[in-house]
Amino acid sequence: MTFRSLTASILLAGGLLLTFDTAARSDTAADEQTIRGLDQKWLGAVQAGDAAASAGFYAPDGSLLPAGGPIAQGTAAITAVWQGIFGMKNAKLTFTPTQVTVASAGDMAYEIGTYELSFDSDTGPAKDVGKYVVVWKKIGGDWKVATDIFNSDGAKK
Amino acid sequence: MTFRSLTASILLAGGLLLTFDTAARSDTAADEQTIRGLDQKWLGAVQAGDAAASAGFYAPDGSLLPAGGPIAQGTAAITAVWQGIFGMKNAKLTFTPTQVTVASAGDMAYEIGTYELSFDSDTGPAKDVGKYVVVWKKIGGDWKVATDIFNSDGAKK
Repeated sequence: MTFRSLTASILLAGGLLLTFDTAARSDTAADEQTIRGLDQKWLGAVQAGDAAASAGFYAPDGSLLPAGGPIAQGTAAITAVWQGIFGMKNAKLTFTPTQVTVASAGDMAYEIGTYELSFDSDTGPAKDVGKYVVVWKKIGGDWKVATDIFNSDGAKK
Repeated sequence: MTFRSLTASILLAGGLLLTFDTAARSDTAADEQTIRGLDQKWLGAVQAGDAAASAGFYAPDGSLLPAGGPIAQGTAAITAVWQGIFGMKNAKLTFTPTQVTVASAGDMAYEIGTYELSFDSDTGPAKDVGKYVVVWKKIGGDWKVATDIFNSDGAKK
């Protein structure tokens, strides 16, 4: 449960007023679990190669900042980036959140994680390992991706 | 001014209690200006090639996720990444925030921006243009970088 402000006041005999205020607190642990649950569903869409479903996790004004390409903003542009990834030959992508941190009012969160992408390149099977940051924002009670950026750890030495 | 919770109660005659609650509000416009000011100082450190000063903008447990390298966590590792960037021959780096969004309680913010890096490679002058996301968190009243990630827009076609 998330609440922005809950104030309880007890009026004691003689006019003494005790006020308990839970303001600016939110159930950030529950929000973290909600976001981790969304990640699981998102991973399902990714592993199904469903670009439209993947794009559905972003806010309407959200952005995806892909390595090797310009900023994609909005559902159509984000869908196109996912189509490009899923269009790679034998593309297999998985990602793993390592940290989800929720702001105290429960309206913003950031996630750090790692990914593994394998595909068939012109010269044979290829693998890319890297990391990402996703910023989430709550819109009308739902967590949506505000922005999403990733990069590669680089060629294996 | 930032405040987490300010509750004013007025006890009227007859025991009627009116409570005004400003909870979960913060002066996010002022926080945005503070962060943009920090970016200006940070840019000064970057343009001076000062790795230690650049690393000083991060939280002690903050992270830098560089393109082409593993996650750097903590001041020493972050300083080393900046030393690597500044160690490139004739490295010139500039960055420009395009969006700074502050969470309602004023404890978290995210920034999206672009960068331009020029340097002398083995084959001559090179230029890289890309984008970044920085997540800020407030620690004891000061905004510090929680995580920082960037990637290239890719080779010019």
